[in-house]
Amino acid sequence: MKLATVTHAGRTKAAVLDGARWRELPAPDLSALLAATPLDRLADLAGAQLPGAVPVLPLPAPRKVVCCGLNYADHITEMGRELPTHPTLFAKFADTLTGPEDDLVLPEGLDVDWEAELAVVVGAELTGADRDTAARAVAGYTVANDVSVRDWQKRTPQWFQGKAWDRTTPLGPVVVTPDELDPVAGVEVICRVNGVERQRGDTRTLVFGAADLLAYVSAFTTLRPGDVVLTGTPGGVGTGMTPPVYLADGDLLETEIPDIGTLRNRLRITESRS
Amino acid sequence: MKLATVTHAGRTKAAVLDGARWRELPAPDLSALLAATPLDRLADLAGAQLPGAVPVLPLPAPRKVVCCGLNYADHITEMGRELPTHPTLFAKFADTLTGPEDDLVLPEGLDVDWEAELAVVVGAELTGADRDTAARAVAGYTVANDVSVRDWQKRTPQWFQGKAWDRTTPLGPVVVTPDELDPVAGVEVICRVNGVERQRGDTRTLVFGAADLLAYVSAFTTLRPGDVVLTGTPGGVGTGMTPPVYLADGDLLETEIPDIGTLRNRLRITESRS
Repeated sequence: MKLATVTHAGRTKAAVLDGARWRELPAPDLSALLAATPLDRLADLAGAQLPGAVPVLPLPAPRKVVCCGLNYADHITEMGRELPTHPTLFAKFADTLTGPEDDLVLPEGLDVDWEAELAVVVGAELTGADRDTAARAVAGYTVANDVSVRDWQKRTPQWFQGKAWDRTTPLGPVVVTPDELDPVAGVEVICRVNGVERQRGDTRTLVFGAADLLAYVSAFTTLRPGDVVLTGTPGGVGTGMTPPVYLADGDLLETEIPDIGTLRNRLRITESRS
Repeated sequence: MKLATVTHAGRTKAAVLDGARWRELPAPDLSALLAATPLDRLADLAGAQLPGAVPVLPLPAPRKVVCCGLNYADHITEMGRELPTHPTLFAKFADTLTGPEDDLVLPEGLDVDWEAELAVVVGAELTGADRDTAARAVAGYTVANDVSVRDWQKRTPQWFQGKAWDRTTPLGPVVVTPDELDPVAGVEVICRVNGVERQRGDTRTLVFGAADLLAYVSAFTTLRPGDVVLTGTPGGVGTGMTPPVYLADGDLLETEIPDIGTLRNRLRITESRS
């Protein structure tokens, strides 16, 4: 199944794709749907068609967004580093997320960089879960770009303040259920800036896969339906180029996982806020 | 004013202290009260007395909990470090918080350490705020202990996984409004383990004060009523001792700010979860 939150007739609705058409699911968005409905019942709930529906931010209200850094083995190895024994984790807020076609609006003077990622959507409550239990709790996968404000990220040892700018992490356009997508077998994660490819990774090379990450996080904090875990970015980010390259006003950031879809977000620079 | 969330007759209620007695405020807890009520109207809303009411976790549902590290000048200087130019920030979840008298329940085999802190409660929405605006948006101050799982904190460069264990950051017992408490003039922050004093700091030596931190965070993410910002811990944590000392099963952790109150939390070790 391909699930989404769509706008239709001026409201948002949870929806499931039926061929080329969206059909209504009984909730205003996927956050509300997953909180109320067991995964195995979703397929039976498809209602009326929603002609002209357009996907927006699929998960507007996760209670937890946990991100993993340093997770692509080929990129870590090419940087001359050892493979990590534990995932490097940090948090974002629900406010950090934005929709698949939304502009990224930021003040001037920031070093804004891209990080294309596979995101995992939690479908069942997990506390102290083992890997198999965590694997069965995956509601699906979607595309994310962990857009990072590098100068703020590097101001202190903790990355958070470069990673939690409001409405800077696009997510979507759809959530694909695990029966249709297997990141362990490999899916490509691609990032383009103004049409030029900057990143292309394969989830086969993830050090910590989706089930590993959900199990690891659930050892210290309960994950619930609708929570989101970002799996890290492959090589090719702007800060790693010589000299570093960052996004400029008007740049088009495209983030693609072929069997899920493409995020298209344009950077809009406003006057400085502070 | 001293505000709290209390249990009374089997339910929680927001409450305000009137002399030695709690009086009801029109919300089930301070998170709900602050979300619905402007700060300057709280005093007019006190209702019936609540005999036998007991303070519990004052803010059960903050959307954001932001923590500052490395913020006491005397401790930074004694460690031979330079004073920071920017606050070091990381995030917790609402699930990380627990009440002023709750046990801290953790699996065996972890290095559990203490970090007594002054916590700031946000009382008005802040986006891109300057320092003066941020100062006026402080709803009040409370006591926190940023209890840290040091071995997990040190597994990777990012502290988050040692800082976000469910129900390990006690908060409370009351929220004191800024007309009754001024951290810039100095309040003491004290930590005792089994009655032995381990930390005693003074908020006069904070590098980044409450208003500084709220303004800084609001540059990248909107703060809303009921959100919580922890201001960092003074010297004297267990991991800094030679050899390091950590909490053991049954240890009593007391965290005190004299004009606010004292948290009393006992560590309870369960069998390992994973």
